[in-house]
Amino acid sequence: MNNTGMHEECGIFGIISPENGRKLGNLTYFGLYALQHRGQESAGIAVKNGSKILCHKNVGLVSEVFNDEILQKLDGETSIGHVRYSTSGGSSGINAQPIVSNLKFGNIALSHNGNITNSEKLKFELEKRGAIFQTDADSEILLHLIAQSDTDDFYTALNESLKKLEGAFCFLIIYDDKLIAVKDRNSTRPLCVGKLKDKTVISSESCALEMIDAEFIREIEPAEVLVVDKSGNMKTSKFTPETDKKFCIFEYIYFARPDSVFWGVDVHSARKIMGEKLAEKFKFNADIVIPVPDSGISAALGFSAKSKIPYEKGIIRNHYIGRTFINPTQELRNMKVKMKLNPVKSIIKGKKVVLVDDSIVRGTTSRKLVRLVKEAGAVEVHVAISSPPVISPCFLGMDTPTCDELIANSMSINEIAEHIGADSLVYLSVEELVESIKEVKGFCTKCFCNE
Amino acid sequence: MNNTGMHEECGIFGIISPENGRKLGNLTYFGLYALQHRGQESAGIAVKNGSKILCHKNVGLVSEVFNDEILQKLDGETSIGHVRYSTSGGSSGINAQPIVSNLKFGNIALSHNGNITNSEKLKFELEKRGAIFQTDADSEILLHLIAQSDTDDFYTALNESLKKLEGAFCFLIIYDDKLIAVKDRNSTRPLCVGKLKDKTVISSESCALEMIDAEFIREIEPAEVLVVDKSGNMKTSKFTPETDKKFCIFEYIYFARPDSVFWGVDVHSARKIMGEKLAEKFKFNADIVIPVPDSGISAALGFSAKSKIPYEKGIIRNHYIGRTFINPTQELRNMKVKMKLNPVKSIIKGKKVVLVDDSIVRGTTSRKLVRLVKEAGAVEVHVAISSPPVISPCFLGMDTPTCDELIANSMSINEIAEHIGADSLVYLSVEELVESIKEVKGFCTKCFCNE
Amino acid sequence: MNNTGMHEECGIFGIISPENGRKLGNLTYFGLYALQHRGQESAGIAVKNGSKILCHKNVGLVSEVFNDEILQKLDGETSIGHVRYSTSGGSSGINAQPIVSNLKFGNIALSHNGNITNSEKLKFELEKRGAIFQTDADSEILLHLIAQSDTDDFYTALNESLKKLEGAFCFLIIYDDKLIAVKDRNSTRPLCVGKLKDKTVISSESCALEMIDAEFIREIEPAEVLVVDKSGNMKTSKFTPETDKKFCIFEYIYFARPDSVFWGVDVHSARKIMGEKLAEKFKFNADIVIPVPDSGISAALGFSAKSKIPYEKGIIRNHYIGRTFINPTQELRNMKVKMKLNPVKSIIKGKKVVLVDDSIVRGTTSRKLVRLVKEAGAVEVHVAISSPPVISPCFLGMDTPTCDELIANSMSINEIAEHIGADSLVYLSVEELVESIKEVKGFCTKCFCNE
Amino acid sequence: MNNTGMHEECGIFGIISPENGRKLGNLTYFGLYALQHRGQESAGIAVKNGSKILCHKNVGLVSEVFNDEILQKLDGETSIGHVRYSTSGGSSGINAQPIVSNLKFGNIALSHNGNITNSEKLKFELEKRGAIFQTDADSEILLHLIAQSDTDDFYTALNESLKKLEGAFCFLIIYDDKLIAVKDRNSTRPLCVGKLKDKTVISSESCALEMIDAEFIREIEPAEVLVVDKSGNMKTSKFTPETDKKFCIFEYIYFARPDSVFWGVDVHSARKIMGEKLAEKFKFNADIVIPVPDSGISAALGFSAKSKIPYEKGIIRNHYIGRTFINPTQELRNMKVKMKLNPVKSIIKGKKVVLVDDSIVRGTTSRKLVRLVKEAGAVEVHVAISSPPVISPCFLGMDTPTCDELIANSMSINEIAEHIGADSLVYLSVEELVESIKEVKGFCTKCFCNE
Repeated sequence: MNNTGMHEECGIFGIISPENGRKLGNLTYFGLYALQHRGQESAGIAVKNGSKILCHKNVGLVSEVFNDEILQKLDGETSIGHVRYSTSGGSSGINAQPIVSNLKFGNIALSHNGNITNSEKLKFELEKRGAIFQTDADSEILLHLIAQSDTDDFYTALNESLKKLEGAFCFLIIYDDKLIAVKDRNSTRPLCVGKLKDKTVISSESCALEMIDAEFIREIEPAEVLVVDKSGNMKTSKFTPETDKKFCIFEYIYFARPDSVFWGVDVHSARKIMGEKLAEKFKFNADIVIPVPDSGISAALGFSAKSKIPYEKGIIRNHYIGRTFINPTQELRNMKVKMKLNPVKSIIKGKKVVLVDDSIVRGTTSRKLVRLVKEAGAVEVHVAISSPPVISPCFLGMDTPTCDELIANSMSINEIAEHIGADSLVYLSVEELVESIKEVKGFCTKCFCNE
Repeated sequence: MNNTGMHEECGIFGIISPENGRKLGNLTYFGLYALQHRGQESAGIAVKNGSKILCHKNVGLVSEVFNDEILQKLDGETSIGHVRYSTSGGSSGINAQPIVSNLKFGNIALSHNGNITNSEKLKFELEKRGAIFQTDADSEILLHLIAQSDTDDFYTALNESLKKLEGAFCFLIIYDDKLIAVKDRNSTRPLCVGKLKDKTVISSESCALEMIDAEFIREIEPAEVLVVDKSGNMKTSKFTPETDKKFCIFEYIYFARPDSVFWGVDVHSARKIMGEKLAEKFKFNADIVIPVPDSGISAALGFSAKSKIPYEKGIIRNHYIGRTFINPTQELRNMKVKMKLNPVKSIIKGKKVVLVDDSIVRGTTSRKLVRLVKEAGAVEVHVAISSPPVISPCFLGMDTPTCDELIANSMSINEIAEHIGADSLVYLSVEELVESIKEVKGFCTKCFCNE
Repeated sequence: MNNTGMHEECGIFGIISPENGRKLGNLTYFGLYALQHRGQESAGIAVKNGSKILCHKNVGLVSEVFNDEILQKLDGETSIGHVRYSTSGGSSGINAQPIVSNLKFGNIALSHNGNITNSEKLKFELEKRGAIFQTDADSEILLHLIAQSDTDDFYTALNESLKKLEGAFCFLIIYDDKLIAVKDRNSTRPLCVGKLKDKTVISSESCALEMIDAEFIREIEPAEVLVVDKSGNMKTSKFTPETDKKFCIFEYIYFARPDSVFWGVDVHSARKIMGEKLAEKFKFNADIVIPVPDSGISAALGFSAKSKIPYEKGIIRNHYIGRTFINPTQELRNMKVKMKLNPVKSIIKGKKVVLVDDSIVRGTTSRKLVRLVKEAGAVEVHVAISSPPVISPCFLGMDTPTCDELIANSMSINEIAEHIGADSLVYLSVEELVESIKEVKGFCTKCFCNE
Repeated sequence: MNNTGMHEECGIFGIISPENGRKLGNLTYFGLYALQHRGQESAGIAVKNGSKILCHKNVGLVSEVFNDEILQKLDGETSIGHVRYSTSGGSSGINAQPIVSNLKFGNIALSHNGNITNSEKLKFELEKRGAIFQTDADSEILLHLIAQSDTDDFYTALNESLKKLEGAFCFLIIYDDKLIAVKDRNSTRPLCVGKLKDKTVISSESCALEMIDAEFIREIEPAEVLVVDKSGNMKTSKFTPETDKKFCIFEYIYFARPDSVFWGVDVHSARKIMGEKLAEKFKFNADIVIPVPDSGISAALGFSAKSKIPYEKGIIRNHYIGRTFINPTQELRNMKVKMKLNPVKSIIKGKKVVLVDDSIVRGTTSRKLVRLVKEAGAVEVHVAISSPPVISPCFLGMDTPTCDELIANSMSINEIAEHIGADSLVYLSVEELVESIKEVKGFCTKCFCNE
């Protein structure tokens, strides 16, 4: 799929330490660095030092937004960070997070990953009651709900506010001298806790715990509100008893880093099994299995292991892509795809190829890629997709394609195969997909289903 | 005085045009460029195009924050801009203006110049009622007051909110398809209206009207709420009948550009008269009159004209100062002053010098400057200040010195003269100062008075 | 090996076109972009337009140094570009290439990849005869030799000068209205010609031809001087008949992109065979084969195919590394390696692992990596290196390790294994390595041999 | 005149100190900062530390090119710096100075101010003998002449090389452990020596000595070669006995800072006398004298003193001009001039104005300015120019206007007056100009004479 915009994703990361002077800014930097795949648009870190919250955020990669001098100033007892993926928003970084604000409970910093589905309604009501919204992010909504709460107790206000939010959300909040982690009742997005000696760490993915040598403790549970104090004591509660785990299965398919683990099942192994199941359904002869890098690699390895068709690194991915888009000349067809993905002629030439990708959304990239692979000399190109046809837009996503844009919504599998120029096309069924991750229960698979 | 921080100032500028496509972004750029002396910390422009408000703002000079490509995108029917002077605030430009926000009345952009003196009280009440504050600027307060208003009529909400604000303020607001200009009941800060053909222009100072060849129409009146529509129709009202003009006399003394005009009196002429009045009080022989550039030039010219002591450009001002502060070596005394002001030995050597400056606040800069002038060979240095001794901190200013820091608060004029190393020191009295601008009535002179 | 500094490498790329207006700047940009792996320190493009040579170069990645506006100005009939890898040199880009200069033959632009081994001697002689050197690059030497030649014929001067150079070099030169490509007599570094319709293209690697859809024609031969005119006519000659092909075998082992092809053998396939040969020598039981990404991937695939031990993506490479180095806290051991390479616990845990890398130079990185893999739970770590022990510094390289730093110079294979913490360690012999690329004859393997 | 390009100017500055660790980089920074008016295009500093020369240079202002971190690294015993004015040259700073190079005498750093008039001939000869030129600056010529010298003694080589140069030049050279200052036989450009305790300082203008509290010692003499060692010993000699002082009179008219002193006469006083002489020739009634800031200020003060017509600051200069040029809208006439110069209506309205400027070259700016002043309400505008009509292009300047472009070459004074819209126009004669600086003998006034 390679960033064709199925969801708007973010990464969040937080630490609380018994005392100041532990370089929380640097630790948060390394955590965000490991979550960079979840968002390359902007990055930010907020640190509470005594009663003061300091924040630095801007558009750019983690390594571009921060330097040693800036991080040195970002020290304190509690820290949260954020990386944001977004095609929307302006260049001046207004939508970058964390959001730091003052409200009747004092100053609060907040990082958010997710999409509030009743945001329009809530915004309307909040505005009616006097709220002003300064960013495009619906992350502001929780702050306003808390701020407008009638109660004088922050935690009551927080719980009541969370109950009003629909959709997907993970929040990290610095309030008072606590670090608070929150997940929606469906556990749609990942969030987990770890320990780094006397410090408590919370992260979107476990790979960021690994990065700083922190030990994984457990997932945040559906509707959980976890309050961690500086001594590392954790007080857990649920903002609602009505939970219904529906973890976004696309975290396993595409979003997460393969070395991350959710509920005991690592992403890489899950993807391998998806690939094995694809192999079982594959009815043709082929010479080599090629992943679309990087997201198709694990599934392709599984496909190869099962089918005994050799795995080959038939497409090279170029990682030096910068921000500036250079106009190709008329002579340069397919340049946008070729800037990233380069088929290796010597591997592909004369071969019957199985191309393994994680998903097809609009079909545009797949079509160009199949053409590139055929131009590189493949005699047959069979496409294997480690997920079912996407037929519904994500009801949790803001910038996702509409029904009309989803190719699987208007075409049969055979028609899609023809459209993208593939000699055959195989998908997983929803059942096969879920079966690939059978140790984990409770997935959201709505984008594969007609509503 | 030269930026010793007596007040925190800003410049605001706005335009409304009958139709889109008139390059409002560029016009606003040129207007802000002419107001750059009012704030070098950050710059921003917001433009309403149809129903959408676009905004670009960042830390830096107008010429650094914008380029042609950015301005091209900033087109619309209404536009407001802002330049901000501040030593506080972080590097990521969170406090830059205009502020764009959504509230129950729709989206609104706002630029502010001034200081709300009851901001802490208002913030406390607003937060109690659910407001969240995302910047340090008290400019957010008006937005929150409007947002929390009970009425459904924007203009009622605006008027009621303005009534609650104490202190000094000029606002430019884009709301609906209107450009709105507002001034506090004391008319503390300047704001005027002009016309550029079919476009209406509002600016902190008239020099920005000149810049874009717009014709000056009139000042905004105390407590005035001026609503301009796209056809250029102006509807005026007052948010309170209780007005009491108390225009900050420091606009004439120091803040404004000499080619700006307030109530028919241009700043340069007023300063010249101040200088003449100083000359009348001057009892010594002297060879030359030297201004502390740039703010002392006009008064020095008046002093020279009256006293017949020749005017000389005895101090050169270096305008190439950048953002980065370079540490001087131990050998380099007075480097911070010398980076900006360089006495001309050949003019000064062997001379009895009258040094004309606009004000003395802490006395630190004056002391260094007198020393530099003596080191350049002056045999006598008489200091003439075109304002009275500053003995009270500005009750409207956030970052102004405290009582203790004000040299005139703890020392007599003779003691100050001795402290700064001057052979004599003459100030204007409050009466003489006011008399210098006698055509204009109603000034705030509190900083020269004991409360 | 992963950039441990065995050689100083560069990438060069050039185009000549029948006429102006073909966006040579953009085409060269895309070519350099595909060669980015050969140098990330600086980038530059020079274009000859009529009689004038325009040049833009700076420190940074290709995507950072250029933008559309700059490229638009870089149009002409002939173009050369350069990407440079270097740890030496200052921040102001003085050593960036191409070098543009005026000499008696007119103006000339030059890009260089290689190392002149008799540079000190030549510089001494050239300086004695009046040369001034303005960069650290020994690329200037050829220009000075040409400039000081007695002859008035450029090509005679070029040939005579080339004869004096010892060591490794590939040059691209814009002279008059010609594009000239030159290789040393040993063909140490790669350089090939291609055609893009009526344009002739010359590139360090064939992957850059692929990038712009140009057709590969042939390699530049040892000691060849190829002169291409605007019509695409090629005139070839040799600057010396004494050629002795000794292609740097490390291009196959590590430097080149796997989709590049030299003398008909693609890099990926060669590396796969190296991996197969390693597998034949491997005497242990193991559960999985893991490459050190990206350079170990192809060999690991070959190892897996031969040994039937499953290939696994057990180490994730992070590609978001920026320029700024952030100091890790004391708690963060091995951070420098972990910023780039992250072992996947779920894959590795409890496994006997074969770790396939391209080479071991100092042993430092290997040692840290083996430790990381063991910390991730591997019960055994066997290291397989797809090249022989490096026992001599590259006589062609400037910044290569000294004898003392080469671990294989002072330790036996068993000692190295122990030092890096591996349970076993297997290398290829020189014969096995050469046998892996048997279709190609004539390699330099000096770094594996005692002199 | 205000940068209409009569000459290409630069500023140079150097220091030598008994020992390392004296922050020479910082001192050189402050010196260049005071010379910034001589060149805003690029800046650079080279420092010799032991046997190594470090150099940092780039396009931009001194305050933009350097920061504290960079300066800290630029420490040593000898230092030279350069600021460059140029409209030519590319964006990548290839032409920035100092130039650092290696030649048979070792490594040398060089800064240059001036124009070599026989550069084409010398380049041709040098190239014939093998030189390669890497910049557009003819500053390289001296290095090549030295490098190609037959002698093995550096100072012999230097002297012989200097003899071959025609035109204007001041050089600062770091060679061995010496700082060398050189001037052409006509002393065309300024260069002077000073002392800062045990350090010796050399600067284009004395204002840079003042900046760092160094004491002025003397001017460098025509054809002088001054060699300063680390102890501060100075060895002087002349590279030729045939000297003929012809100091560029435009240094007094326009280039130099008013607080600089040449041969005992300060620039400000000289300009004042020019203004007095203009006043003597002025035959009309006028109400006010207005300078074109900043270069016309001193002459306007002299004009006013003599004529008793009051001096007024009738034009405000805006100093916030940035690099990016913003396109004005069609409505904005004269914007390019108004970005810099703003007439003050309240001063000018209804007045008969004398406008004092330093020179008229093409007449374009003068024409626009007179129109702006008339639009501001002046009833008469008399223009007084503190120099004679420029009728010949500077034979020393590269980028100066051609004969055809010089308005005084094709029009009589009355015609020029009409062309620029002035009610009268008065120039100084060459005799009057020279008489204004009568204490100094030996000027170049060729641009005012027909050849």
